[in-house]
Amino acid sequence: MDLNADLAESFGRWELGDDEALLRVVTSANVACGFHAGDPGVIRRACAWAAREGVTIGAQVGYRDLLGFGRRFVDVAPAELTDEVLYQIGALEALAGAEGTEVSYVKPHGALYNTIVSHREQAAAVVEAVHGYGRDLAALGLPGSLWLRLAEERGLRTFREAFADRAYTPEGTLVPRGEPNAVLTDPDAIAARCLRLARSEPIEAVDGSELEVAAESICLHGDTPEAVTIARAVRDRLAAEGITPTPMSRR
Amino acid sequence: MDLNADLAESFGRWELGDDEALLRVVTSANVACGFHAGDPGVIRRACAWAAREGVTIGAQVGYRDLLGFGRRFVDVAPAELTDEVLYQIGALEALAGAEGTEVSYVKPHGALYNTIVSHREQAAAVVEAVHGYGRDLAALGLPGSLWLRLAEERGLRTFREAFADRAYTPEGTLVPRGEPNAVLTDPDAIAARCLRLARSEPIEAVDGSELEVAAESICLHGDTPEAVTIARAVRDRLAAEGITPTPMSRR
Amino acid sequence: MDLNADLAESFGRWELGDDEALLRVVTSANVACGFHAGDPGVIRRACAWAAREGVTIGAQVGYRDLLGFGRRFVDVAPAELTDEVLYQIGALEALAGAEGTEVSYVKPHGALYNTIVSHREQAAAVVEAVHGYGRDLAALGLPGSLWLRLAEERGLRTFREAFADRAYTPEGTLVPRGEPNAVLTDPDAIAARCLRLARSEPIEAVDGSELEVAAESICLHGDTPEAVTIARAVRDRLAAEGITPTPMSRR
Amino acid sequence: MDLNADLAESFGRWELGDDEALLRVVTSANVACGFHAGDPGVIRRACAWAAREGVTIGAQVGYRDLLGFGRRFVDVAPAELTDEVLYQIGALEALAGAEGTEVSYVKPHGALYNTIVSHREQAAAVVEAVHGYGRDLAALGLPGSLWLRLAEERGLRTFREAFADRAYTPEGTLVPRGEPNAVLTDPDAIAARCLRLARSEPIEAVDGSELEVAAESICLHGDTPEAVTIARAVRDRLAAEGITPTPMSRR
Repeated sequence: MDLNADLAESFGRWELGDDEALLRVVTSANVACGFHAGDPGVIRRACAWAAREGVTIGAQVGYRDLLGFGRRFVDVAPAELTDEVLYQIGALEALAGAEGTEVSYVKPHGALYNTIVSHREQAAAVVEAVHGYGRDLAALGLPGSLWLRLAEERGLRTFREAFADRAYTPEGTLVPRGEPNAVLTDPDAIAARCLRLARSEPIEAVDGSELEVAAESICLHGDTPEAVTIARAVRDRLAAEGITPTPMSRR
Repeated sequence: MDLNADLAESFGRWELGDDEALLRVVTSANVACGFHAGDPGVIRRACAWAAREGVTIGAQVGYRDLLGFGRRFVDVAPAELTDEVLYQIGALEALAGAEGTEVSYVKPHGALYNTIVSHREQAAAVVEAVHGYGRDLAALGLPGSLWLRLAEERGLRTFREAFADRAYTPEGTLVPRGEPNAVLTDPDAIAARCLRLARSEPIEAVDGSELEVAAESICLHGDTPEAVTIARAVRDRLAAEGITPTPMSRR
Repeated sequence: MDLNADLAESFGRWELGDDEALLRVVTSANVACGFHAGDPGVIRRACAWAAREGVTIGAQVGYRDLLGFGRRFVDVAPAELTDEVLYQIGALEALAGAEGTEVSYVKPHGALYNTIVSHREQAAAVVEAVHGYGRDLAALGLPGSLWLRLAEERGLRTFREAFADRAYTPEGTLVPRGEPNAVLTDPDAIAARCLRLARSEPIEAVDGSELEVAAESICLHGDTPEAVTIARAVRDRLAAEGITPTPMSRR
Repeated sequence: MDLNADLAESFGRWELGDDEALLRVVTSANVACGFHAGDPGVIRRACAWAAREGVTIGAQVGYRDLLGFGRRFVDVAPAELTDEVLYQIGALEALAGAEGTEVSYVKPHGALYNTIVSHREQAAAVVEAVHGYGRDLAALGLPGSLWLRLAEERGLRTFREAFADRAYTPEGTLVPRGEPNAVLTDPDAIAARCLRLARSEPIEAVDGSELEVAAESICLHGDTPEAVTIARAVRDRLAAEGITPTPMSRR
C-alpha cells in the first residue's frame, strides 16, 4: 500500500503544511506545480526532501487559479487544458531533476480532480497531456472516475486511491464536506481504517454498513494542523502490524 | 551564421508577432516561457511550427512580470531566480517535447537580459539554472556579458549575438533606444549589415567608424509590424550571396 | 439612443482596439477593470479620453482570468464574486476620478455577462456589489436577463442593450457565434439596423422575420480591426437621419 | 499616539495574521490592497472589523508582486506607479465603503516603503497618486523620508511612525534585519519603549545611547505568531499609565 499526500502548497510568504515532516511519513508526494499553489522555491525544496527520503514524486496539476486555490471549476477548453497540464508537469520535472529525482505520476488537484470524475472533455484533455508527455507517467485518482478509465484506455498505468479521513456513503462515494461526520478526525480511527485498507478488508461506511474500497494508495491530508500527527499515527499503526508502505511501482 | 528571433510572445486574446511566418526565416527561436509572455497554447504552436521548419528552440526566460512584459528590473534573490528559470525551461521543454522537439539553449529576455550583462548574483543564478538543468543547454547572449563569461567558466557552451537593427557605439555597446538613430529601420541597410556580420567583416558604428562584432548569431526583432519583411530581406540577401543560415550547433 | 463599446482592453505590451478613435463615436464606454483586461495606465488613458469627449463611463467587470480574457466560466462563490466586483468598480473609479470623471454604470463582461443571464446566485452577487457600492450606478445588460431583473427588484436603474452586429433568432436570442451568419460584417447593413433600433422599429431576424428589440443602448464591438469603421458608419447614418446618440441618463 | 499595524495580508487559502484580534488593539489599520497580499474578501472582512472597532483605515499599497509579497524592488516607471497606486486605493475604498467606512491615509508596503525613502521618481509618483485621488488622504511613513517630504511639499497631511520592535542605530536609522539584536522580542521591553514614545521621551538606541524619535504613530507588526500578544502588552501598558491611543486625526 502506498501513502500519498499533497505537498508544496505554500506560496511565497504564505506557508501551508509541514512538507519536511510529511515527507518522512508518506511514500508518494503530490507536488503542487505553481498554478493553484507552490512557487518554484517551495517546489524545489519539496523535491529535495522527497529525494532524500526516497519518496516518489507526482505532479499535482490544477486550474490556473491561485486565489481560489484551484478549488473552483474553470471552463477551460480541452486543448488549452492539455497544454496547461503539460506546462505544469514540465516545470515540476525541471525542479525535480535539479534535485536528482523525477516525476512519476500525475494527480489532478481540487476542482480539476472533481471535474474529471465525470467531465469527459476535460478528463480526456488531462489524459492527452499525460500521454503526450511521453515518459510513462502513471495516473492517480478516484476509483471509477472517467479520468482513470480514459487513462487506462489510452494505455497509461493507473492507480486508485482511498481517503484516510473522509466518510464514505454505502454506495462508495464520499460524504460531501458540508454534511455531519463527513471528515474523520480521530487519529486512532483513521489509522484503524488505513490498516483495513492496507489489508484489502472492507471499511465502515457512514451508516455502519461494510464497504469494499479497492485502492493501491491512501490519500492523507497535508494542509491541516493535525496532518503530521495523523500521518504518523497511520504509519505507526501499519508498522506495528508489520506493514511497510511502498510507493506505487514506477514501471 | 545563425538567425534568432523572439517568438511566442502572444498571450491569450492578445496577439503579438507572426510566429508562423518568422519561423520560415530564422534558424533559432527564442520561445517565451509564460512569465513575461507566452501562454501554453501559444508556446506549443510555436514549438510545432519550429519543429516543422527545423528551427532550433531556445528558452526565452524572463522575470515574472506579465504587465511589464519582463522589461522592468525585479530584485529577485539569486536562489529564487535559479528556481524561476528552471521552472520556465522545464515548462517549455514539456510543450516542445509534445511536438517532438526539445530545448537547446537559453536566452534571457528584456530586463533580465540587460541586468545579467553586469549583475553578478543574477548572472550566476541564471547560469546555475542552466547548469542544473543538466542537458547541455547552451547560453546565448551579449558578447562580453557576465552571463556568457560565467556560463563559460561553468563549462556551458556559449554563443554570442549581434543585433540586426540596433546602432552600435564605436565602443561596441548598443546606442540606448531613446537616442536618435538608435534603431535601423531600412530593410536594405539591415540586410547589408547582416551580410557583413555573416562574413565576419566589420560593421559601421553610429559615428561612421568601423567596428568588429564577433557573433555566432544575429538577433532579428519579432514583435514589430515590419518584422517579417525585414527578416525576409536579411534571409534573401544572405541567400543571394550564397550564405545559408544554420542553427547554432547542438553539441 | 446610446451607443456603447468595450474599451481599455489592452494590457501592458499588448494592444487591442483603438480606444481614442472609438471614444469619438460612442456615448458610453465599458471600461475594462484589470481582471480580464486593462492595466491601470490603459484604464486611465481611456478615462481621460472619455472625459474629453463627454463619454459616460461604465465598469466592465469580469472574472479574474487574464489568460482567458474573462471568457471562461469560473465557479466563484457568490460572496466572493460580490467583493471581486466591488474591487473592480472602486479601482476604476479612482482612475476615472483622477481624470475628473466617474463611473456611472456596470456592464459585466464575457463569460460573466453570459452566466448572469440565467445563473441566479452569480446574478444576485453582481447586483449586490452594484447596490453595495452605493452611488446609484445603473445596470446595463441583455433584455430579459436575470441580471437586469434582479437589479430592478433591488431598486437599481437598468438599461437594455441590443447588438449592432449579431444575428437574432426569431425568438429574440442571439445566434451562437459558431453558426453561419451569426455576425453581420457589412457596415451599411449594421448601420441600417442601428437606425431601426434607434427609431424603435422592428429589425430583421436571421430567418427574415420581423423582431421587436426594446433597448436603450446599442453595443458596438471594439476589438476587431473594422471596429472603428463600423462605429463611424453607424454614427454617420444616425446623424444623416437627424439622430444624435445620447448617453444613458445618469439619474 | 496612534498604533498602526499591517492587516488583510492573507490571500485565498493562505492565512496570515489574526486581523480580528489585532483590530481590537490598534487604532489605524494598514489594509493590504491585493497587489502584494489581500484578496477582496479578506480586505472586506478587515474593513468590517475596523468599522466595528472604530479603527481608521489606510491603504497599504505595494508593488504588483504576490510571489515576493511586495518585498522586492520593481523598477516601475513613475507614471505607471502612480496609476497602480490609484487603482489600489480605489479598490480598497469600494470595499471599505460597502462596510460604511473609508480610506483615510496611505502607507506604502515593503520594498516600495523602503524605496521611496530615497528614490525621488517613485516617491513623487506615489505622492502624485495620493494627491490625484483628491480626498485629503494623509501620508504615513518614515521620519525624514523623501516620501513624507514630497507629500508635505504637495500639501498633503503627513504622519511619522516609529517602530515598536525594531532596534535603532544612534543615528536614528533602523538596524538592518540581518544583524544581531535587530528585532526586539520581549513584550515588556517593547511596551516600555512604546510608553516612552507615547510620552515623547527619548528611547534607547542599540548601543545604549539615548535617541529622540519624533512620531505620531507606532508601527506594531501584525504577521508573526506573537503579534497579538505584543500588541496587547503595548496597549495594556499604555492604559496602565492612563494613555489611550487615538487614530491620526482625519482632518
